[in-house]
Amino acid sequence: MLGLPAGSLPIDRETLRARDAADPMGPLRARWDVPDDLVHLDGNSLGPPARTWPDRIAREHRAWRNDQVGGWNSAGWVDLATRVAGRLAPLLGASPDEVAVTDSTTVNLFQAAAAACRLRPDRRVVLTEDGNFPTDRYVLSGVADVTGTRVRSVARDRLLDHVDDDVAVVAISHVDYRTGHRHDAAAVTAAAHAAGALVVWDLAHSTGAVHVDWHAWGADLGVGCTYKYLNGGPGAPGYVVLGRHLAQDAVPPIRGWFGHATPFAFDPEWSPADGAARFRNGTPPVLSLVGVDEALAGFDGVDPAALDARAAELTDAFIDLCDQHLDGQVEVVTPRDRARRGAQVSLRHPEAYPVMQALIDRRVLGDHRPPDLLRFGFAPALVRHVDVADAVDTLADVLRTGAHGDPRYADRKTVI
Amino acid sequence: MLGLPAGSLPIDRETLRARDAADPMGPLRARWDVPDDLVHLDGNSLGPPARTWPDRIAREHRAWRNDQVGGWNSAGWVDLATRVAGRLAPLLGASPDEVAVTDSTTVNLFQAAAAACRLRPDRRVVLTEDGNFPTDRYVLSGVADVTGTRVRSVARDRLLDHVDDDVAVVAISHVDYRTGHRHDAAAVTAAAHAAGALVVWDLAHSTGAVHVDWHAWGADLGVGCTYKYLNGGPGAPGYVVLGRHLAQDAVPPIRGWFGHATPFAFDPEWSPADGAARFRNGTPPVLSLVGVDEALAGFDGVDPAALDARAAELTDAFIDLCDQHLDGQVEVVTPRDRARRGAQVSLRHPEAYPVMQALIDRRVLGDHRPPDLLRFGFAPALVRHVDVADAVDTLADVLRTGAHGDPRYADRKTVI
Repeated sequence: MLGLPAGSLPIDRETLRARDAADPMGPLRARWDVPDDLVHLDGNSLGPPARTWPDRIAREHRAWRNDQVGGWNSAGWVDLATRVAGRLAPLLGASPDEVAVTDSTTVNLFQAAAAACRLRPDRRVVLTEDGNFPTDRYVLSGVADVTGTRVRSVARDRLLDHVDDDVAVVAISHVDYRTGHRHDAAAVTAAAHAAGALVVWDLAHSTGAVHVDWHAWGADLGVGCTYKYLNGGPGAPGYVVLGRHLAQDAVPPIRGWFGHATPFAFDPEWSPADGAARFRNGTPPVLSLVGVDEALAGFDGVDPAALDARAAELTDAFIDLCDQHLDGQVEVVTPRDRARRGAQVSLRHPEAYPVMQALIDRRVLGDHRPPDLLRFGFAPALVRHVDVADAVDTLADVLRTGAHGDPRYADRKTVI
Repeated sequence: MLGLPAGSLPIDRETLRARDAADPMGPLRARWDVPDDLVHLDGNSLGPPARTWPDRIAREHRAWRNDQVGGWNSAGWVDLATRVAGRLAPLLGASPDEVAVTDSTTVNLFQAAAAACRLRPDRRVVLTEDGNFPTDRYVLSGVADVTGTRVRSVARDRLLDHVDDDVAVVAISHVDYRTGHRHDAAAVTAAAHAAGALVVWDLAHSTGAVHVDWHAWGADLGVGCTYKYLNGGPGAPGYVVLGRHLAQDAVPPIRGWFGHATPFAFDPEWSPADGAARFRNGTPPVLSLVGVDEALAGFDGVDPAALDARAAELTDAFIDLCDQHLDGQVEVVTPRDRARRGAQVSLRHPEAYPVMQALIDRRVLGDHRPPDLLRFGFAPALVRHVDVADAVDTLADVLRTGAHGDPRYADRKTVI
């Protein structure tokens, strides 16, 4: 055993079956197109399609075919991004005018972090964590170049010690993509504000699974993607959240017509749209964006706090079963404190890549993060309680039999 | 008559029917899903879907549904942007490594113009035209902010007079979105280079219709969209062209993992991919991008110079018929010299908006650009010669009968 937390009781498959039977959120799974035999623990990389997705795409295709460019009017593509933002806002605890659905997380982080730096023009530091998602680190180096700041990267447990009066912006991920560590967002925000700094959150591994409570956090700016827990589709557009207290003053470096107050007036000068919408810029990728709209329809009426609680229950059970059945063969690197954990559990194993390939072949879908992490996401809108038992049983079986030693698992060149 | 060019012969519907019958490029139209009764003269705003689009989307949906995140491997989404760039390159006269299909034209212009400014760090001016597309103007003001330059905006006919030794970058549209004026790209490039400046082209109103001859131009950087003449779908991703002579030194301000030399190594530091691929940044919107791939398949084997010649023939005929039949009721604002004209003709009329609405109701699809332009695009991959006669006849009929005085045309709130 790997140190069962005090108070935990051993659980088994029957306990989990009973939870599924009694779970009022269980029926959510039926909104997504997931093969029944698949233990889908990779919603933190790419969520499944909404069952309504093909019909919606066919409808947009008819508008395009029949009305051609007129689809911008007849199918409402002009206002689509605004409607999608309105659907996303409740999952963020934000108001619709604080949300823009646009571009990629990468572009949005550039936009948000650069705008934040300009709101603190006398400060020279963008503070981040050593373990932040690599592309976030690349983006922040670019932000530093264009704003005359520099990036200070520190260990997570020293982060707040480094928030001094030269820090313009703290730019970090709410939930760590590797370990699943979750920040106390309200506390980080309060500490940053006490030092006069702003915080830009990457919410990619949070929204749709981990409770984002924008107003309660007193948050400044955030960005994220819609293709993980929100099931928007591969590479679907991201979003920007802009706290209303900054809405008058935040100006993104990239200013495009879809962020203009009156895009189709073709004004020679840019006038920002109200609120977060100013962070939109080019013409939106409609067919990817309708996928987001359809996916978010699957979250209508779903309480983000309830999603968070369900994810905590699933991840608790997974950690407990790993403790019970894996006998020290893996290390749980995700925090055992649910308040410090996202909707994922990562396990360290020296042969993580072939082990994950063996699991995928056995219909347990997780992913691998180099060098040695097995990563499992517990998307609370679709994972069954019993999936937890199946995943741990399969993993135990792979490790026991050495199935991951099969040479074809070592040879695969895959990204997951 | 509005001044028929010397040497023109009057043409009529029968001439145009005969041209359709003899036209080796006529069958291209069948690759696109355009209602037979529609005179589609708005391919410069949004092109039609490829006929193969629904099957392709269904295939990608199956990959997503069956393989979930595994679709990145099984359906080849990881390399999709590279394959699409390879398909686009011949239409640009560029090499595949000089092309990246990514993001929106807006983001790409920011990236390209900012990178160009950094290649000329001792110069302080971004030169553009007064009439450049508004969003390009907005973007360039943002580029100036982040690079410490300023925008100098001048009238087109004085552009080359202003290319002095303080100009870092000339950033203009190859074809003007309003008037359809086409620059002599090789001449502008040569003049800019003689003064030590770089040129960033917006090719949105060129590629797929007007001959872009990247290597012959000696061009530096370019951007454009795929949803106009290339038929990629509403808001489909744009592209960046990066001349090979700049490939080692150009660094975009936004650096993301899909522009990294080894994205899935999760390196903490950014290392640029070779060539234009470094201008990619976030995860690409796969479903919009496969639309581009499918559309470009419709251009396989099509010679861009032949597309240009066909567009010239169509626009010549349209101008001739306007001269013959509209009796001075409209002003042709597009250059009559085909070498100085894109694949569009714009007509000035004081009631352009209701006139265009009346045309659209009569199945002639063009658009309106404020305050007083009727804009007609002649996408050479789909417009029939006889469409030219139908469009002019319908316009003549609307103007003769005053059909555009119908109050419902004044009331419409549409973007086209």
